Amino acid sequence: MNFSEYFPVFSKLTKQEQLALTDSVTLRKMKKGTVIHGGDEECLGLLVIRSGQLRSFIFSEEGREITVYRLFDHDICLFTASCVMKSIQFDVTVSAEKDTDAWIVPIGVYQRLMENSAVIANYTNEIMASRFTDVMWLVEQIMWKSFDKRLADFLAEECIIEETDILRITHEQIASHLGTAREVVTRMLRYFQSEGIVKLMRGSIRIIDMEKLSDMSR
Amino acid sequence: MNFSEYFPVFSKLTKQEQLALTDSVTLRKMKKGTVIHGGDEECLGLLVIRSGQLRSFIFSEEGREITVYRLFDHDICLFTASCVMKSIQFDVTVSAEKDTDAWIVPIGVYQRLMENSAVIANYTNEIMASRFTDVMWLVEQIMWKSFDKRLADFLAEECIIEETDILRITHEQIASHLGTAREVVTRMLRYFQSEGIVKLMRGSIRIIDMEKLSDMSR
Repeated sequence: MNFSEYFPVFSKLTKQEQLALTDSVTLRKMKKGTVIHGGDEECLGLLVIRSGQLRSFIFSEEGREITVYRLFDHDICLFTASCVMKSIQFDVTVSAEKDTDAWIVPIGVYQRLMENSAVIANYTNEIMASRFTDVMWLVEQIMWKSFDKRLADFLAEECIIEETDILRITHEQIASHLGTAREVVTRMLRYFQSEGIVKLMRGSIRIIDMEKLSDMSR
Repeated sequence: MNFSEYFPVFSKLTKQEQLALTDSVTLRKMKKGTVIHGGDEECLGLLVIRSGQLRSFIFSEEGREITVYRLFDHDICLFTASCVMKSIQFDVTVSAEKDTDAWIVPIGVYQRLMENSAVIANYTNEIMASRFTDVMWLVEQIMWKSFDKRLADFLAEECIIEETDILRITHEQIASHLGTAREVVTRMLRYFQSEGIVKLMRGSIRIIDMEKLSDMSR
């Protein structure tokens, strides 16, 4: 599959707009752990994920992190192109959670298309609305949901993403996703273990009662 | 002043687009306390505030509230038109915090303009990016800022909005803005009083040391 099949509104563009995209787009391979956006990184352009996984997060002055959202195959990362939208007055960091292949639409090309094409501008709108929805979901989670439920939710989601019931993840990494301290995660995981929901092993967590885990996250 | 002066991209539109707006826009007066959007309210349209104050908030199943952002003169409320953006998968409630006069661009007119005009689509984008920025600020506040700082911040902001150092607001109302319980607000306000920052009175709060309040919110 090539770029045009990953860019949903491609067929609605004029021939000229389609050429501007296909002539300028490049495929980039990013190793797991690479910081793609944030801090001193330049504004890369619009990123269309062919395969892999990206994580978008913010951090406090003390260096504590919280995951804002994650992106998968076919998703589009708007914040690597956020410099074209002057009203975005916040910064998120985007890094590759897995080895990732993504097409990059250069920032200048994207900006020109957006300024002139209502189709591209409205599509950009839809992407932003999706990310906005992710963040509102996050606000509801941190405001109204107790930590045991959030942790159960996270573990269940990880099992779906990784297609396994043995998660190779440290307590520290979970803490960075959920915006809390490692000790808080460890304490709650031990409670989950005492309830027969998980088994804690060196460097990994095995889910032994998926039904109870799902019940808990509700 | 009339509508065109409140709609920043008006001069960039074609004559036909300008007419579509001015022919359809209506001025509506909304009493303090009116729920404008959310729950069973229909999707009203794009709202351009001539004067007044709107509050956008979400609430939990238990009925606890938190203010997501507020809108003032010249601001534009996008969420009363959110039904035209299918990727907005969350609901906020919008209510009038003060008597408010606003122009309403009917939803159908706005949708047609957005679909066909890159100017309007990009402007919509900028409004959404501003609200997105507000919500990211909120996430940072609730994640990394202790409650004493958030309360100090809120009181200082209220003094600026109301142009007074005597705030006529209940502890319950403050709790609804900050997403916490009334008792938590009362306890912290009593601490502020013991520190000589505020004086608590029946139905109002007097700020007696604004400098200390500002220091605290940092």
